[in-house]
Amino acid sequence: MRGLGNLVLVCVAGMLSASSAAANKPPTLADVLAASTASDWRGLDPENTLYLELATGRVVIELAPAFAPNHVVNIKALVREHYFDGLAIVRSQDNYVVQWADADSNRPIGNARKTLPAEFTVTRPDIPFTRLPDADGYAPQVGFSNGFCAARDPKSGAAWLAHCYGMVGAGRDNDINSGGGTELYVVIGNAPRHLDRNVTLVGRVLQGMELLSTLPRGSLPMGYYEKPEQRVAIKSIRVAADVPAGERSALQVIRTDTKTFTDLVESRRNRREEWFHVAAGYVELCNVPLVVRPQPAR
Amino acid sequence: MRGLGNLVLVCVAGMLSASSAAANKPPTLADVLAASTASDWRGLDPENTLYLELATGRVVIELAPAFAPNHVVNIKALVREHYFDGLAIVRSQDNYVVQWADADSNRPIGNARKTLPAEFTVTRPDIPFTRLPDADGYAPQVGFSNGFCAARDPKSGAAWLAHCYGMVGAGRDNDINSGGGTELYVVIGNAPRHLDRNVTLVGRVLQGMELLSTLPRGSLPMGYYEKPEQRVAIKSIRVAADVPAGERSALQVIRTDTKTFTDLVESRRNRREEWFHVAAGYVELCNVPLVVRPQPAR
Repeated sequence: MRGLGNLVLVCVAGMLSASSAAANKPPTLADVLAASTASDWRGLDPENTLYLELATGRVVIELAPAFAPNHVVNIKALVREHYFDGLAIVRSQDNYVVQWADADSNRPIGNARKTLPAEFTVTRPDIPFTRLPDADGYAPQVGFSNGFCAARDPKSGAAWLAHCYGMVGAGRDNDINSGGGTELYVVIGNAPRHLDRNVTLVGRVLQGMELLSTLPRGSLPMGYYEKPEQRVAIKSIRVAADVPAGERSALQVIRTDTKTFTDLVESRRNRREEWFHVAAGYVELCNVPLVVRPQPAR
Repeated sequence: MRGLGNLVLVCVAGMLSASSAAANKPPTLADVLAASTASDWRGLDPENTLYLELATGRVVIELAPAFAPNHVVNIKALVREHYFDGLAIVRSQDNYVVQWADADSNRPIGNARKTLPAEFTVTRPDIPFTRLPDADGYAPQVGFSNGFCAARDPKSGAAWLAHCYGMVGAGRDNDINSGGGTELYVVIGNAPRHLDRNVTLVGRVLQGMELLSTLPRGSLPMGYYEKPEQRVAIKSIRVAADVPAGERSALQVIRTDTKTFTDLVESRRNRREEWFHVAAGYVELCNVPLVVRPQPAR
């Protein structure tokens, strides 16, 4: 059957062939993953992993406390108050975002906070950053920080997360300090990078994106569902640490500070799979696959 | 309710407010569209418009004969032989493409051709091109050619269509001349621009994207459906010219060679809506909305 020379991004490295490794060709993504070793991968911190449970299955979200420390604390507080349980996805806008919220604005908040000061950028010299060799239109530099797509400005020292597919952010009103995590959105379309530094990103989806990206689109402006019964119920959101170990999703994420990851980026800057006719010599930040795999059996 | 300061891309200009037009601020997209006149829009050529009919509704595709003349002729020949009627969408890969094909490879072809030489680029000095002022990583220049996202190389004189969301292309095998239009795919994810000049793009979806982008994802590699019954049946594909006038989709597309369009691009390079905190000063090619609207009543 004819294809487009692509790979499933969330994949088991062992399933991929290493057909071009034997020859003297630069490695493909499949080759890079097949040659990776245990130290090229990391597990998840259950204290910074969320499970969004829908009727159709589980969406696994990795939080980014290095970039949005206060939002992460607050979202976990909301989760532990069961704030989100029984709320719903209220918005699904094609090529843009899905979003969940307290549509009726009557859900009480306990010790968590309803709003927080914006965390659009951080200034932390210690933040890891593997720079992408290619230029970017939206930021002076882009790259990867512990598995997240990120950007930074060497002049100001500021760093921030980038709005790539699957990123999770905290919706807000016009007041930049009106977010806080009670409404969260997930990018389901072409990277809306113009939102960078305009809204606080808090994490990314590692598994279950298709449960969000295939939701029916809402017919109201901005993709809001017209009728309450069209909303998609949230059974619960849980911090993975609060879920019995046997019920957790055992995943690993590729590390972004390794030689293997540098090779992975290069395999996407210049596609060497046999199908390709022209190699781009470039990869846009959001087209670099931040690969997730099931944790291998010990 | 909180939002992300975005607009529905396929919208009726009259529905949009012109709140900032009165003040002395640069216009927003809503302002630009509200101020547009009839000459800023064009209708569709029914000879180069396809209707993909699914059980859930109609997907309207505009063909691009200026970029893929032979493929467009062949696809229309296939359509007029009813080649696609009763075939199915066989592939839905998250953040990538949906694709339809003759999965069982037993559909006869009459006067149309099964394969065609690749039409990855064209060299036509007369091709219209409204250049985007911003740099692009995948091409020396990018811009818009009669409503399509495109790229060009001033050195070679070659121009080509760009893989943005909603673009339609002709799947192929490893042989670059093995396409031809019997298998067509639509981009449903972050722009896979590395495919540019690797596969022949033939058009773009103007309406009904959500009927494709929300299809369940296939579980096999590359998003192929595992079981035949999971495939999504195609009732028919028709050339609009062959459909009675009263059953056609009356749409207009924004022209890309006007002052209004230049203003539209600028409204996206620097977002002036009240919600925005930082203006990007840049817009990526595939983030420029090529707005479609219902044809206004006369």
